[in-house]
Amino acid sequence: MADQEPVASDSAEEIMAGTYRALCDHGFAALTMQDIADECGKSKSLLHYHYNTKEDLLVSFIEYIVDDFESRVEMAATAPPDERLLEFIEWFAFDPNERERQSFHIALLELRTQAPFNERYRAQLQRSDDLLRDTVADILATGIDEGYFVDVDVDRTASLIVAALDGARTRQITLRDETYTRVVTDALLEQLVEPILTDASSILDGGDDPE
Amino acid sequence: MADQEPVASDSAEEIMAGTYRALCDHGFAALTMQDIADECGKSKSLLHYHYNTKEDLLVSFIEYIVDDFESRVEMAATAPPDERLLEFIEWFAFDPNERERQSFHIALLELRTQAPFNERYRAQLQRSDDLLRDTVADILATGIDEGYFVDVDVDRTASLIVAALDGARTRQITLRDETYTRVVTDALLEQLVEPILTDASSILDGGDDPE
Repeated sequence: MADQEPVASDSAEEIMAGTYRALCDHGFAALTMQDIADECGKSKSLLHYHYNTKEDLLVSFIEYIVDDFESRVEMAATAPPDERLLEFIEWFAFDPNERERQSFHIALLELRTQAPFNERYRAQLQRSDDLLRDTVADILATGIDEGYFVDVDVDRTASLIVAALDGARTRQITLRDETYTRVVTDALLEQLVEPILTDASSILDGGDDPE
Repeated sequence: MADQEPVASDSAEEIMAGTYRALCDHGFAALTMQDIADECGKSKSLLHYHYNTKEDLLVSFIEYIVDDFESRVEMAATAPPDERLLEFIEWFAFDPNERERQSFHIALLELRTQAPFNERYRAQLQRSDDLLRDTVADILATGIDEGYFVDVDVDRTASLIVAALDGARTRQITLRDETYTRVVTDALLEQLVEPILTDASSILDGGDDPE
């Protein structure tokens, strides 16, 4: 926005970390700029100096978490495709001890219900969806090229994997079901990943561990 | 509730149909008893005679739609298991012309975000999740017994199918993506259902059509 001051990098990190904590503690619907300011240890007027509205701040926040995920994907891109796929899927399984993660995803789900009516939220969530699907499609395409996987429709398979992981997470957090993501990641590995591996002994049995 | 009058069946149907339309038009967060009364063509005091609070009415409403789905599942239970599985999965694919269905599921997603904090909503959504997973598990178990499907872990496969369909729907409605459910149902049929069919020519190629 032309009328907003750019945020110095350290301060931006602090504001984003505070926004994350505020979403975990207060949810999305009830969240105020004061809640975020309190979590950051900054004044509300400082936040408003950088972000005109709560919506501006939250759009920047989603952008920030998608950027963060993108960096992690890039860092992991040197590993073999079968390991990358396993790691991607495993990353979505979480257990009841991860309370903060659960609270964050409930808040994010609240925000997602606003996306049909809010073009700016929707644009950031679309970027997140594109990144997730492209990441899986890229892992699959590389793996097929390099002989790790048999030939499959990479885009369609990527959509299925991302949808299953998202649905499992939504059900785990809304139903307070402690095992939904674990059950679904296990099912994905056994019923979708194992059948496309050219060497099924490689990763799924924990091939690296001496047994 | 002991202090609520039971609703005569015709009237209950009208109130449930009105609640559905009100959720489609107003969403969940902003919904009032007056909105529902207007959609039913009944007075707000009549609604309050039967339902003390909006929450009471919405709990009954979710119960009603789960009952309705249960009846449809029972009616379809005489068809062969491969057709039942195809029909179950296909039922989740919907296109952009189904605007009402889209609006309803956005409202339902809003309600689902409240379930972690509302035991009564959560109990009804849990019943819905149990019904969906049990339906798929039952189709798979029957199909394995009767030789339609090869042996698979029925509960785990059911969780994967239900999670994938839910995630695809959430992404379709929140991102206004017109094809997400279609892409994911196609992927499920090709990558999860086709490999477990003992006679793959049976249903997926539209075996009933003369070609």
